[in-house]
Amino acid sequence: MPKISFISDNTTTSIEVQSGTDVLSAARLANVAIDAPCSGNGSCGKCRIRIAEGNVDSTETRHINKEDFDTGWRLACLSKVSEDITVEVPDIAAAYKSRMKVADLSSGKEVEIFTQCQNDIENAGLAFGNGAQVLKIKLEEPTLDDTMPDDERLSRAAAAELGASDVIIPYSVLKTLPGKLRDAQFDLSLTVQKYEDRAEILRVAPASDAAPACGLAIDIGTTSVTGILADLESGKILAKASSGNGQIRYGADVIHRIVEQEKPGGIKILQDAVIKETLIPLILAMEKEAKVPADAVISLTIAGNSTMNHLFLGIDAGPLRREPYIPAFFSCDPVPAGELGLPVNPKAPVHIMPNIGSYVGGDITAGTLASMVWDKDEINLFIDLGTNGELVLGNRDFLMSCACSAGPAFEGGDISCGMRATDGAAEACTIDKDTMEPSLSIIGGGALIGLCGSGLIDVISELFRCGIINAKGKFVREGERVKHNEHGMGRYVLAVRDDGREVSISETDIDNFIRAKGSIFSAIMTMLQSLDMDVSVIDSVYVAGGIGSGIDMDNAVRIGMLPDIERERFHYIGNSSLAGAYAGLTSTAAREKINELAQSMTYLELSAIPGYMDSFVAACFLPHTDASLFPSVKQN
Amino acid sequence: MPKISFISDNTTTSIEVQSGTDVLSAARLANVAIDAPCSGNGSCGKCRIRIAEGNVDSTETRHINKEDFDTGWRLACLSKVSEDITVEVPDIAAAYKSRMKVADLSSGKEVEIFTQCQNDIENAGLAFGNGAQVLKIKLEEPTLDDTMPDDERLSRAAAAELGASDVIIPYSVLKTLPGKLRDAQFDLSLTVQKYEDRAEILRVAPASDAAPACGLAIDIGTTSVTGILADLESGKILAKASSGNGQIRYGADVIHRIVEQEKPGGIKILQDAVIKETLIPLILAMEKEAKVPADAVISLTIAGNSTMNHLFLGIDAGPLRREPYIPAFFSCDPVPAGELGLPVNPKAPVHIMPNIGSYVGGDITAGTLASMVWDKDEINLFIDLGTNGELVLGNRDFLMSCACSAGPAFEGGDISCGMRATDGAAEACTIDKDTMEPSLSIIGGGALIGLCGSGLIDVISELFRCGIINAKGKFVREGERVKHNEHGMGRYVLAVRDDGREVSISETDIDNFIRAKGSIFSAIMTMLQSLDMDVSVIDSVYVAGGIGSGIDMDNAVRIGMLPDIERERFHYIGNSSLAGAYAGLTSTAAREKINELAQSMTYLELSAIPGYMDSFVAACFLPHTDASLFPSVKQN
Repeated sequence: MPKISFISDNTTTSIEVQSGTDVLSAARLANVAIDAPCSGNGSCGKCRIRIAEGNVDSTETRHINKEDFDTGWRLACLSKVSEDITVEVPDIAAAYKSRMKVADLSSGKEVEIFTQCQNDIENAGLAFGNGAQVLKIKLEEPTLDDTMPDDERLSRAAAAELGASDVIIPYSVLKTLPGKLRDAQFDLSLTVQKYEDRAEILRVAPASDAAPACGLAIDIGTTSVTGILADLESGKILAKASSGNGQIRYGADVIHRIVEQEKPGGIKILQDAVIKETLIPLILAMEKEAKVPADAVISLTIAGNSTMNHLFLGIDAGPLRREPYIPAFFSCDPVPAGELGLPVNPKAPVHIMPNIGSYVGGDITAGTLASMVWDKDEINLFIDLGTNGELVLGNRDFLMSCACSAGPAFEGGDISCGMRATDGAAEACTIDKDTMEPSLSIIGGGALIGLCGSGLIDVISELFRCGIINAKGKFVREGERVKHNEHGMGRYVLAVRDDGREVSISETDIDNFIRAKGSIFSAIMTMLQSLDMDVSVIDSVYVAGGIGSGIDMDNAVRIGMLPDIERERFHYIGNSSLAGAYAGLTSTAAREKINELAQSMTYLELSAIPGYMDSFVAACFLPHTDASLFPSVKQN
Repeated sequence: MPKISFISDNTTTSIEVQSGTDVLSAARLANVAIDAPCSGNGSCGKCRIRIAEGNVDSTETRHINKEDFDTGWRLACLSKVSEDITVEVPDIAAAYKSRMKVADLSSGKEVEIFTQCQNDIENAGLAFGNGAQVLKIKLEEPTLDDTMPDDERLSRAAAAELGASDVIIPYSVLKTLPGKLRDAQFDLSLTVQKYEDRAEILRVAPASDAAPACGLAIDIGTTSVTGILADLESGKILAKASSGNGQIRYGADVIHRIVEQEKPGGIKILQDAVIKETLIPLILAMEKEAKVPADAVISLTIAGNSTMNHLFLGIDAGPLRREPYIPAFFSCDPVPAGELGLPVNPKAPVHIMPNIGSYVGGDITAGTLASMVWDKDEINLFIDLGTNGELVLGNRDFLMSCACSAGPAFEGGDISCGMRATDGAAEACTIDKDTMEPSLSIIGGGALIGLCGSGLIDVISELFRCGIINAKGKFVREGERVKHNEHGMGRYVLAVRDDGREVSISETDIDNFIRAKGSIFSAIMTMLQSLDMDVSVIDSVYVAGGIGSGIDMDNAVRIGMLPDIERERFHYIGNSSLAGAYAGLTSTAAREKINELAQSMTYLELSAIPGYMDSFVAACFLPHTDASLFPSVKQN
């Protein structure tokens, strides 16, 4: 069998595969990260690799120009192996890979948004409190005159301390109870979950080995996964960490993931990719950082879109993508963590934030809570710009939601130099109108790898402002940084790196991005029109999501992505999905509120609205075909 | 490393072990059944094996006479291996092994007792019914105008059909719901568990693939395990099977099992022995026999003594055997079958019949229900003669229980030729007074292997009647069948088999049995005396348990095991533990009654009663030192 050696991040990984296997599939088998937003059908061009030794049987593609082809560049998904080869994987091809990052909480910056959200929610009348409690208790030791069984001895004493009428000891705790009591000489620290006048004992440890009662709030994004580990009694955030979603190599967007999931064994493969590859290391890292044992984590909230929720639970998401687009569930009862194999207390309930449609999920219901639009008299707009775009419009009287098929462009997918907002991504850019020279702000301060969503907005806005591209996104100005390939397709070169690789943005990229921003803007307009409203009713716009905190709202308006209202009305609120999940974790009232919001929110299916397609086409222009919608934007 | 080859049942099994390992431990590692009632301390003599090739380093023992020693007989537990050897395992040494037997239900004999018990219980006012139901239902298929999620579609339709206010779909069912609905084209058979106005859907299958809603009642005895698979809607018994408890090679009685369990890893080893080795094959055999898929089995009741309950659940039973003798629990909430790895519906609740003391367990609370003593005006005695002896005395006004340390003699343990009541066991015996020739009735009709409990009673009663042994159990008559070893210890030879092995009963065996029967009789007397009563108050005696259905009550009285009352007042009621578990499975009211009985029953700790030891010593005689207690028994 031919052997493939992958060189990635200065590491060589080898695998033997059947002749005829494509290089992308081989990389998946070898656990080598190669991004494939299109999940391997040759359309996205992200899986560019270089064959350093040997030959592959490769299909031609518009993504590789002749010069690159001659130096060994190929698309991994279209290259079949028949002999031993060595493959170089450039860093951009693995930019999405699951690099885990444990946040530094010392500055307070990382927790600010969640504390703010918690305050807002409390001010809105949703009390902090979730029933979790650590109880120190010393039991009477049994004697020949007092032979009560261990479980009754414990539950009676705990009931008295807690003022509970009924104390439950689940099997997982009962199972090791005799040893625990005796090792601790009956001097205990209990981790308890109270439900009104009942209580459940979830952890029994020696008094000397007490740990806080902890919970996890986790945002499972299509691209990124972020979690918070919090002390449930105080609400204090003890650790925060993020990483790429391990499913990324099975496609950048939910549709490609579902397609992969429908292959034989796919449900388990996709579930393993998010649970085993992503969540388990993430949770273990947070527990380690917070110095908390796994069984002290007794509650979880999970916010994800509908597809992520299905794949996380290992439930066939196939019907979501096929007419009539039916999910298995909107909301489901909490699942015990043990049934999902998560490294926490096996009885910890995993609360899935409820979906309200096939394409408006728990990330939006949780995010809506965090956005606070439901608590205001004025009408507000909440926009989550992640791998897709979802919008909620409303106030305390009504809430309307919709999803637009913006695709993964805001998180760098479908863009040749795109990447998520992590180290090496340019998150902001200005271009000198005269020299056409760019000035980039790079996350982490190191070498440039690519552009994240906010950087893309800036680059396109600046290219347009400088007259380098026209309103259709075509290159119209010549210069050193503007190049054309053999088909006449233009591109703007942001940098040429030390390794010779060019970081550039092409007309195809710009086109993809314009369609993404057009879908957002037309969704906003269609929602407003369906209510006989216009942009003037919007008091504030809350923008959330993986597009990056560096988003320049002025540039976002200039390219016609956001409506042309006063810039101070725009607020970037970060990861609202995680903020909502954190609120739902620490406050039972907030969790109930999220369910209530999900119940009451209406869902607008854009594709069913006459005129939406026209509105979309009109918005695929910089800033828009109807210039009157953008009075503040000076037209070139 | 030395290699040991075991020849057992004409099969050779080989294993390599560390030098110095004893043969019994090696057999356990190799999964070769060698009984070790004393769990390997050289005291019981049951693990006699023959070294056919090679030599072992063996400690001498009173259980091997010189002649046998010279021909290679050794105790497996006292023989250490240092070179390659071949070991012959005689059938008696594996008589307890887990031979599974699926009952033939065609005659109706196997189900009679359970049907009778069910009738008695219903007549006592405990209605049949457990909330299980199979529901055929056809859902409306989703369309673009009807996009309700799968779970709501199902639960709403089921709620309407069932008249339930709330229908729960657990995660285990939700997980595969999309595929199930679509494969079935929304035409379904549901297996439902109702609880008052709530209902839980536990199985979803195509209408064409309907199965009855089933349950399992299982008696986990120290020696034998027996199960019933029943249709929960009709109560009909669909299969019945039994096998030896796989824990048997870790000791015959509960104390030896606990000792083994306290060794490192022992909790898991003992739990695996009963679940993986015993219950899983037993349950699979019943499901196969009844042609029922595993997920159609949605409820279980388990009856076992307190130690069996602990070991089954994998809970440290150590404190049960050490002062002050504390169990982890008396009753516990139902455990989901999935958490125990049983091959049934993972959500099936496993109801553990409640214990009332460290040595009066769920087998007795379930058996008490089946005995019906709680429903009578007259005072009755219920005796369960299994691996130990437990007694319940009372009527509808009071119930008193106690346990006597009778040991495993009634099921053949501690008796050199003893075995459980299965094929090859003599279950009845008469001896001709003149010729001293025995006449045996052998279960299964094949070759004699040994004696079960009822056979032992007969043999000892007959030896005494014929004057072959005296009231102390010593041999006092000479004859061809009476032999003595080099220490003068007598034995009665029941048979010499074709393979040359002698089946005989020795003075040591008789002595062990007399102590067992003495402990039963003295327990009866001590209970009565504690209530200022005598045997005349007893209306009926219900004898249950593994001693065997062939028990001759007259002989049991003659040897002074049971009180000397009219013989027609004795009734053998078979496996009352299983009958009670079956009643608790099919009738929620019966299950609640068992819990109520457990709550109300008092427990008499015999060892704490002054005079019990004297009473026991007086009873260790044939029939008793006080002949006036046995007026009907003609003294020799």
